[in-house]
Amino acid sequence: MINQYGRIAVDSATELEELRAVGFNSEDFETLLRRALTNYKTYEAQNDWLREHVATDEQNIFLFLETKQPLTQAVFYCIAAQLLGFTEALAGNGYNGVATFRQLGLPIATVNNLRHAWYELLNSHTNNGLLFIDELASQGYFESNNHRLLFNGKSLPTYNTNDLIRESVWVETSVDTDNDGRFDLVQVDIIRPNTNEKLPVLFTASPYYQGLNEKGNDAKVHDVNVPLTRKDTHQSALSNLNQMEETVAKPLARQINGYAEEASVIFTQEAGKPVDLNQYFLSRGYAVVYAAGIGTRHSDGMQDTGSPEQVESMKNVVEWLAGNRVAFTDRTSNIAIVANWSNHNIAMTGRSYLGTLATAVATTGVSGLKTVISEAAISNWYQYYRDNGLVVAPGGFPGEDMDVLAELVYSRIKDPADWLKTKNQWDDFQANTEKFTDRVNGNYDYYWDTRNYLNQVKNIKVDMIMVHGLNDWNVKPRQVYQLWSALRDLPNVKKIYLHQGQHIYINNNRSLDFSDQMNLWLTEKLLDKDVKANEILPTVIWQDNSTEDAWHVLDEWGASKKGKYYIGNNVLTTNQNSGELNFKDWLPENQFAYYCEHFDKWRDDTITGKLPTNQIFKSETYTSERTVDGEILLNLRVKSSQNIGLISAMVVDYGNDTYLKETPTNQGVVIDRGVNFSPTDLMSFESEKSSYKMITIGHINLQNRTSPRQNDDLWPNQYVDLHFELQPTYYKMRPGHQLGLIIYATDFEMTIRGNQSIAYTIDLSKSSLDVPFTCK
Amino acid sequence: MINQYGRIAVDSATELEELRAVGFNSEDFETLLRRALTNYKTYEAQNDWLREHVATDEQNIFLFLETKQPLTQAVFYCIAAQLLGFTEALAGNGYNGVATFRQLGLPIATVNNLRHAWYELLNSHTNNGLLFIDELASQGYFESNNHRLLFNGKSLPTYNTNDLIRESVWVETSVDTDNDGRFDLVQVDIIRPNTNEKLPVLFTASPYYQGLNEKGNDAKVHDVNVPLTRKDTHQSALSNLNQMEETVAKPLARQINGYAEEASVIFTQEAGKPVDLNQYFLSRGYAVVYAAGIGTRHSDGMQDTGSPEQVESMKNVVEWLAGNRVAFTDRTSNIAIVANWSNHNIAMTGRSYLGTLATAVATTGVSGLKTVISEAAISNWYQYYRDNGLVVAPGGFPGEDMDVLAELVYSRIKDPADWLKTKNQWDDFQANTEKFTDRVNGNYDYYWDTRNYLNQVKNIKVDMIMVHGLNDWNVKPRQVYQLWSALRDLPNVKKIYLHQGQHIYINNNRSLDFSDQMNLWLTEKLLDKDVKANEILPTVIWQDNSTEDAWHVLDEWGASKKGKYYIGNNVLTTNQNSGELNFKDWLPENQFAYYCEHFDKWRDDTITGKLPTNQIFKSETYTSERTVDGEILLNLRVKSSQNIGLISAMVVDYGNDTYLKETPTNQGVVIDRGVNFSPTDLMSFESEKSSYKMITIGHINLQNRTSPRQNDDLWPNQYVDLHFELQPTYYKMRPGHQLGLIIYATDFEMTIRGNQSIAYTIDLSKSSLDVPFTCK
Repeated sequence: MINQYGRIAVDSATELEELRAVGFNSEDFETLLRRALTNYKTYEAQNDWLREHVATDEQNIFLFLETKQPLTQAVFYCIAAQLLGFTEALAGNGYNGVATFRQLGLPIATVNNLRHAWYELLNSHTNNGLLFIDELASQGYFESNNHRLLFNGKSLPTYNTNDLIRESVWVETSVDTDNDGRFDLVQVDIIRPNTNEKLPVLFTASPYYQGLNEKGNDAKVHDVNVPLTRKDTHQSALSNLNQMEETVAKPLARQINGYAEEASVIFTQEAGKPVDLNQYFLSRGYAVVYAAGIGTRHSDGMQDTGSPEQVESMKNVVEWLAGNRVAFTDRTSNIAIVANWSNHNIAMTGRSYLGTLATAVATTGVSGLKTVISEAAISNWYQYYRDNGLVVAPGGFPGEDMDVLAELVYSRIKDPADWLKTKNQWDDFQANTEKFTDRVNGNYDYYWDTRNYLNQVKNIKVDMIMVHGLNDWNVKPRQVYQLWSALRDLPNVKKIYLHQGQHIYINNNRSLDFSDQMNLWLTEKLLDKDVKANEILPTVIWQDNSTEDAWHVLDEWGASKKGKYYIGNNVLTTNQNSGELNFKDWLPENQFAYYCEHFDKWRDDTITGKLPTNQIFKSETYTSERTVDGEILLNLRVKSSQNIGLISAMVVDYGNDTYLKETPTNQGVVIDRGVNFSPTDLMSFESEKSSYKMITIGHINLQNRTSPRQNDDLWPNQYVDLHFELQPTYYKMRPGHQLGLIIYATDFEMTIRGNQSIAYTIDLSKSSLDVPFTCK
Repeated sequence: MINQYGRIAVDSATELEELRAVGFNSEDFETLLRRALTNYKTYEAQNDWLREHVATDEQNIFLFLETKQPLTQAVFYCIAAQLLGFTEALAGNGYNGVATFRQLGLPIATVNNLRHAWYELLNSHTNNGLLFIDELASQGYFESNNHRLLFNGKSLPTYNTNDLIRESVWVETSVDTDNDGRFDLVQVDIIRPNTNEKLPVLFTASPYYQGLNEKGNDAKVHDVNVPLTRKDTHQSALSNLNQMEETVAKPLARQINGYAEEASVIFTQEAGKPVDLNQYFLSRGYAVVYAAGIGTRHSDGMQDTGSPEQVESMKNVVEWLAGNRVAFTDRTSNIAIVANWSNHNIAMTGRSYLGTLATAVATTGVSGLKTVISEAAISNWYQYYRDNGLVVAPGGFPGEDMDVLAELVYSRIKDPADWLKTKNQWDDFQANTEKFTDRVNGNYDYYWDTRNYLNQVKNIKVDMIMVHGLNDWNVKPRQVYQLWSALRDLPNVKKIYLHQGQHIYINNNRSLDFSDQMNLWLTEKLLDKDVKANEILPTVIWQDNSTEDAWHVLDEWGASKKGKYYIGNNVLTTNQNSGELNFKDWLPENQFAYYCEHFDKWRDDTITGKLPTNQIFKSETYTSERTVDGEILLNLRVKSSQNIGLISAMVVDYGNDTYLKETPTNQGVVIDRGVNFSPTDLMSFESEKSSYKMITIGHINLQNRTSPRQNDDLWPNQYVDLHFELQPTYYKMRPGHQLGLIIYATDFEMTIRGNQSIAYTIDLSKSSLDVPFTCK
């Protein structure tokens, strides 16, 4: 199925005008068809194409046209399916084009109004993941004249990507993180079409952009095979406030020595891998800007993951792009340069850390920023490296932390003189970061509070696009859920895309027109044209976890009421239970060592009941479909055999069935981002057989029952009550499946791994699971 | 280590002339240095760069220059290391540039002759896998003026890749494989710089180029879980000669209706993935040509893997490129078009099937073809899908065969009218192919003999470059070894590259300057300039299997004498043994089924002695280094418990050590193929710990003891003598290692898998291994 949400309905006058503008102003089918054969320059060569393709299952198009037969609905859609590249689907449907279009979910118009049918066809997606008109453009249909051409509310790729201007400038920020008495300069890289038009701007704040220090990163990774230790119960919340250093003196702004017309530093290749969505917009008349921020190569300052100073430096770039701040042509001459090519309307884009900083800048309310498209973004760094008083790693990255990530992106190491100059200061700075992040304690405090952007959501002035994978165990779904929830009652327009992937981009997915939708969105947000994007784009688009290529519009996410399951003797029941169950969180040394290296295997063995280190509880087998919508709450009365303890929980869908893979599959087709520009692989989620699928996960320190800010007391063998939310989801349970809950302690992928001999006992009479089910 | 073989020594007058031509005509270091900072357009911006880099471990370059200190050897190479991007290595060497260059194997000149030192530097490889001068070009140092600029014997990337002409023509072949009475037309795609210069041509014959029919391929894959059956002993060699069909009538050549100045069909993106080495040459003033041949999309004819007709069609393309054959602007108009942009000097390139056809065309002796660069190529199709009377699959592709591959590339299925028209003919054609290939028999016969290009090696007129992975178990090393051996006494110049990879290209490898070498080679072969490439390029370059980034020049491959090992009671000894050993080639059904799906696991378990289905023999532990150079011969007296039987053998290096991985690792760096053109990932072979490494493998049907052409008789429990060569290699055995031999029957990856209950017994008194060892 092709799911297109980025189309708009236009009146017939507009339709005619747009068709004229793109050169498809004809009511004769053969004329339209031959025009679409962009690369066939002669009548005879076109005839070859017509002879290679069919009008019906018995006649090729050349014969059909030669014999002047009437154009039927059947013939039009048979040919249309071939123009869109759905030849295999067409053959599968016995060369019935209408049936093929219906099967693919593509719009079918009446060929009596040929002009409208052709317009609809130009706005339909091809098998290569592009609009048909974009595919024609990619074949050189349009002259790349560097002028904007809107079609159906979206910019066409009419800007010459062979002639892009690539230049660097240095923005003067309002922070001085290296304490040298002068505001930090940050390098900003600009890529823009060579046009006189004022350009809207896509800005990606990426600390990765100037390169990675992978050796430094690896050396910093923390050992997670350390014991859980008891926490002092007297420590108060937000206690390390006074440890924060004050900047010594007010730094001085630079004197401007003059203005340059042109940049002094240019480049031919981006320093880091460009964001694919940005590439798509370059040929469509958008400027693209990257900044790595303070503490990266060619910039001043120290690297402090997610800090207010880092966010401020990125905000300052937006200010320059909006005409409200100074930038220089290099780091020393103090010759200023103005972004005179910018239309002062800026969107921030990017995934993961990049999307995180986009979200963070939005919370500053900076002027000039009009929208944010953030994908798989962090909204609260505590939730990324900690949870409920525990050190909890992003999935796949045990031992990573704020200082490790800072080391990875401190790319000033790549310029030897810069590195020798800042090395000592940097080592001191990192020592401080390590102290603040306190991996023994694991609590939420002042350090984390200043890196929790949820605190400032009310300052967000812009309309927001959020994208997140419901199987993203790196940046976990709670990150977007809490942002979404905090935005719920604010007047901003917001849209959310919940896909079934891991930590990925979705703009190159075959079954969803994400790039088109963003094209429409940005017409409204950055070009100031009312194309009804607010209304036309759905508020919540959810990818169905049970079917390939299915995307659905939802009203909301996470608003459902919860039903209660009682935890019984390895079952989940609707009536209360009694008794006790226990497990011991210890494994023999060689088994422990193996799972440390192979946590995928550990998870499989845990879910399939092969380990004694957990208890599994399963519901009845469902006879009807139901959906988990939001956060599952686990209520657990539990005791530890020691005065320390942690509890982890997974919820699993059990059932022999096909499940979507978490990583989409390369379709062997390359999507063009203009005309022979920046090809990207077309992807699609395929499914595979399995007997289960993990839905959600959660972890808690038994000493943080009340809050991640506060250490509660804990006594050996004394029951305590836990209530904690697992990661939110939106997940369809199919009939014939069972919901499963697994209670365990050490999570080999995410928690510390002390392999301590701790026994845990669950009191079944006071343990339950509140599940936000929506039933059919 | 950087291993550069593609440099030439030039006299100082030439050096000066070349430096002038590229704008580095100065004896002042600062002038040279500032000129190299291509992207820093102002003096001040250059100063930033100078401040970010070091002259010594205490001083940045800006200060060094400002204080007018003398340029020492130490300072020059410290700065040079940074210019080449070896910053990490430089820091590792305490900022000693000379030591860094020495460690990397880069040339060190005397800075007293600054001009020469700079020339050498421009000809040195950077950390990004390019010559420094190529990296400058990639940063826009040269104007892309579409004129050839040779530097150190190699073409610089001075051709504009934003302005390439891409066009299709149809060559009239001299075969009529669809029996329609007219010679088959084949589509030829040309990509060429837009210049008035006559261009040399790289032609890649790729049946894959027009797309793959993967569904058809998968449906055709043969079941390999079939029993081995007894063969009739009366069948004679080359017996199915009379089954070959004759073409009914002499086809007619087309009447030429006129000549066109321009092509009628153009394209913006290649139909298939371009060959990376070709991309490198586009910016260097070479035209690149792809043809998929008969029986592919937009061409006429039937698809017949490796057939004389397929080869003829590719030869015909060379003829058109050399001005000796007609091509048309489309499939029907009969308007001819001449390759008036070609200098009539053609090289064929490509890997695997592509390299195979390059080799095959070379054996036709066609005029215009000047050299072949064939990588991982097949020289004899029998050896690809059969061996010694057995069906033996290419590694990783059990069940594949000539008809399966033909189905994969019969891309005419992609154009519906073409498919509907040819479907029945194609099905009949494939039925014939399946009959000819006879998977039950497995013998060498007339069908295979016409697809064995070794028969025509003596017709090869051109100089040959061959590249092969010694760990390529898809196209196995014997394919190139036999070609190499057949060429040995011919006058042609030939060079061979033996790397440690699987079935890969090596032109993007960091430690070898393969692309430079080919650049030099083609200057001589296609530009007719004597740059002494024949003499300068080594005859045999071998990648060391024991060390990362080490490549050595060898005198020959496979010329050594053999030493004998006797096979004893699970040992390999230097004295003869006696007694019997046996094993049974049968596994329980669930274990058998598991290994069918996981043949990597089967191989691991076999090599580590976990299975009863084999016998393992190990040599003493070596105290000195020795090298296996060529083919190991296995002499085996064996009996089968039935009147059928097959024997497989592996030779293994046993020893706890680090071994190179067979797949190179992406270095996170992108190589530019011009100026922002066709980026490719830089790769490098990294090593990993293991306790063994498989070196070579072989298989034989006990009924083909005499020859793959002849069926010998076989009686249950009666000893027979086998003598068969395993795949050739060049492999260094390190001290502390043991050579191991494993004798077994079913190879889960390569042979048929009958899981028959056959017992095999080895007579140790008559079993030995002849190993071509070279000792240190």
